[in-house]
Amino acid sequence: MNIVIVGATGAVGQEMIRCLSELNFPLTKLRLVGSERSKGRVINTPFGEIEIELISDDLFRECDIALFSAGSDISREWRDRVVAANCLMIDNSSAFRREDGVPLVIPEINGATALKHNGVIANPNCTTAIAAMALWPLHLEFGLKRVIVSTYQATSGAGAKGMQELIDQTGEVLEKCDGDFSKVGDCDVIPQAFAHQIAFNIIPHIDSFEENGYTKEEMKVTWETRKIFGEPDLALSCTSVRIPTLRAHSESIVIETVKPVSPALAREGLANADGVELVDLPESNVYPMPMNATGKFDVEVGRIRRNLVFGDHGLEFFVSGDQLLRGAALNAVKIAELFVEKREAGVDRGAVGIQSASSVDIKGELTNKFLI
Amino acid sequence: MNIVIVGATGAVGQEMIRCLSELNFPLTKLRLVGSERSKGRVINTPFGEIEIELISDDLFRECDIALFSAGSDISREWRDRVVAANCLMIDNSSAFRREDGVPLVIPEINGATALKHNGVIANPNCTTAIAAMALWPLHLEFGLKRVIVSTYQATSGAGAKGMQELIDQTGEVLEKCDGDFSKVGDCDVIPQAFAHQIAFNIIPHIDSFEENGYTKEEMKVTWETRKIFGEPDLALSCTSVRIPTLRAHSESIVIETVKPVSPALAREGLANADGVELVDLPESNVYPMPMNATGKFDVEVGRIRRNLVFGDHGLEFFVSGDQLLRGAALNAVKIAELFVEKREAGVDRGAVGIQSASSVDIKGELTNKFLI
Repeated sequence: MNIVIVGATGAVGQEMIRCLSELNFPLTKLRLVGSERSKGRVINTPFGEIEIELISDDLFRECDIALFSAGSDISREWRDRVVAANCLMIDNSSAFRREDGVPLVIPEINGATALKHNGVIANPNCTTAIAAMALWPLHLEFGLKRVIVSTYQATSGAGAKGMQELIDQTGEVLEKCDGDFSKVGDCDVIPQAFAHQIAFNIIPHIDSFEENGYTKEEMKVTWETRKIFGEPDLALSCTSVRIPTLRAHSESIVIETVKPVSPALAREGLANADGVELVDLPESNVYPMPMNATGKFDVEVGRIRRNLVFGDHGLEFFVSGDQLLRGAALNAVKIAELFVEKREAGVDRGAVGIQSASSVDIKGELTNKFLI
Repeated sequence: MNIVIVGATGAVGQEMIRCLSELNFPLTKLRLVGSERSKGRVINTPFGEIEIELISDDLFRECDIALFSAGSDISREWRDRVVAANCLMIDNSSAFRREDGVPLVIPEINGATALKHNGVIANPNCTTAIAAMALWPLHLEFGLKRVIVSTYQATSGAGAKGMQELIDQTGEVLEKCDGDFSKVGDCDVIPQAFAHQIAFNIIPHIDSFEENGYTKEEMKVTWETRKIFGEPDLALSCTSVRIPTLRAHSESIVIETVKPVSPALAREGLANADGVELVDLPESNVYPMPMNATGKFDVEVGRIRRNLVFGDHGLEFFVSGDQLLRGAALNAVKIAELFVEKREAGVDRGAVGIQSASSVDIKGELTNKFLI
């Protein structure tokens, strides 16, 4: 299979290369596309040295799958030409996620829907994907009635430049404060990747504001979870907050369920779920943290407890997942895997497609039973 | 009035000195108590140079009010002797907060209850106090039915040593990562003030774990809000998370109300509330942030919007407040102010006591009308 990564020099593009390698993706040839600035640069990859090319129609004619991670504008500009070249577009931007006919896919949840594509498959928003890994098994088992999310999002959400800004600014603020911690807001740093200083600060503002007062980032979690779960009326609200960490997002989540729920039952369901790691031994100081979730394929879930507000229909927990992996690169490569023929028996990646399809079937049944 | 601060060299103690000065507290003499290590050290204060003394019974006999901020053990050890010395103890620790007969006071909310003390008045937990400033006006107006809180708590919650650990560790991690952001968890730093590395990390664990899976810090928000509001059955849950900021805590809060609520009405109520600053112009990138709340007496409230989960009975918002001020020193000094005779007409501080008392009366009426 020939794969092209559009946006290969970005933080997500780099992780896509790593995921293709670590999942032993059956690659014939990997092509890398970058901007005019990176053209000709040679990248050292597990697949050998690869030169950055400019985007072109020819490229897509020669590739089976294009992994796009270069922003919504590039995705919109090239979509028709990629489809015309008969190259499957797996798009990490938000450009087509809500469009009818474009499957929005997390392979472990609704992998089967990927097969109904019209040339484009959308990769979900990072915050959505990370929350969904924990929410889906609980939805299957107990039915979600209400979901309330507050996020702790790393600077990697703004790409490599976001992470670099945190690091550079941190040094600058430490120097300017000179030990007087009350001066943290008087450092006159000039933010570029974010709306305000991010060093030793948090910003409750990611993406633009919608008319209803939520940010687009927050609404994406509502819109996209509904689409992925096939639950157009799911009541879900989110507060998205940028925090001074490098990568891996965390989320504090409260759910009200249709069926009674208990921490023990929830733990059991989550322990058996694909793409989830139960990290829940608080008595040993073990719980999800971005520091540990960084670089990990699975989403960490822990701090599972009966919520005090919704009685025996309420659960509260905490998740941490690598924003660049589950929230972007890994999920995109796992979508690509759905289109790999199972050429070797027992190859793990084959199971992804099968399992996703059966999850969807199970869910189809459960919808009527549990949800309005 | 003679005041003694026990724990005067700590982060909160230092802010207590500043608050006494900025509120023009009518001081006759200020005495400062520190540990054996700080004994004899001379502190430069707005009230002149003051030498750190060791704690003693004599000291309390010579003072009218003792502001305690040296941890629960010291407070427990000295309580009886302070009371016996006829010195009013205003205690910042959690030692007596839940005890019957010990008023737990936020002057702007339940100031009148302070007058019913038996020698000890408790200062609430910082997270509780910051949330309560926004919740109280909304409770008066719309009645709180359910409250769901997720916090973003600064390292100042662990005192000066917590802030110093963040700063020192940040430098260490930056050096050890050397530009490779995936190594943030492999730096082998040795945490002391916190259970784990806090630099470029967050820790969903503050204080010890209770049997129900919540931390004591989280339960304090539930227990203490109920006591301060006089609502023993208020449904409130909290997830408390330590984040790599220096001071000022933030909180993402979702409420379900008894009466229908709207963002416009909520803004109106909050704009008129004491101790609250409405910071809510998202279209101009203006919302609460720890960077701006640091050093400020008022709690910033913004991102006010209709919550998507509770329909027209739901509201969602974000608060930031200085943990060392409203969350500790300012609140304690404002409690002390309740005992200052209004010696000068028109002095602002006099109004605090009057207003608090009338709030309590209003609230007493509203309880039956709005709440179960």
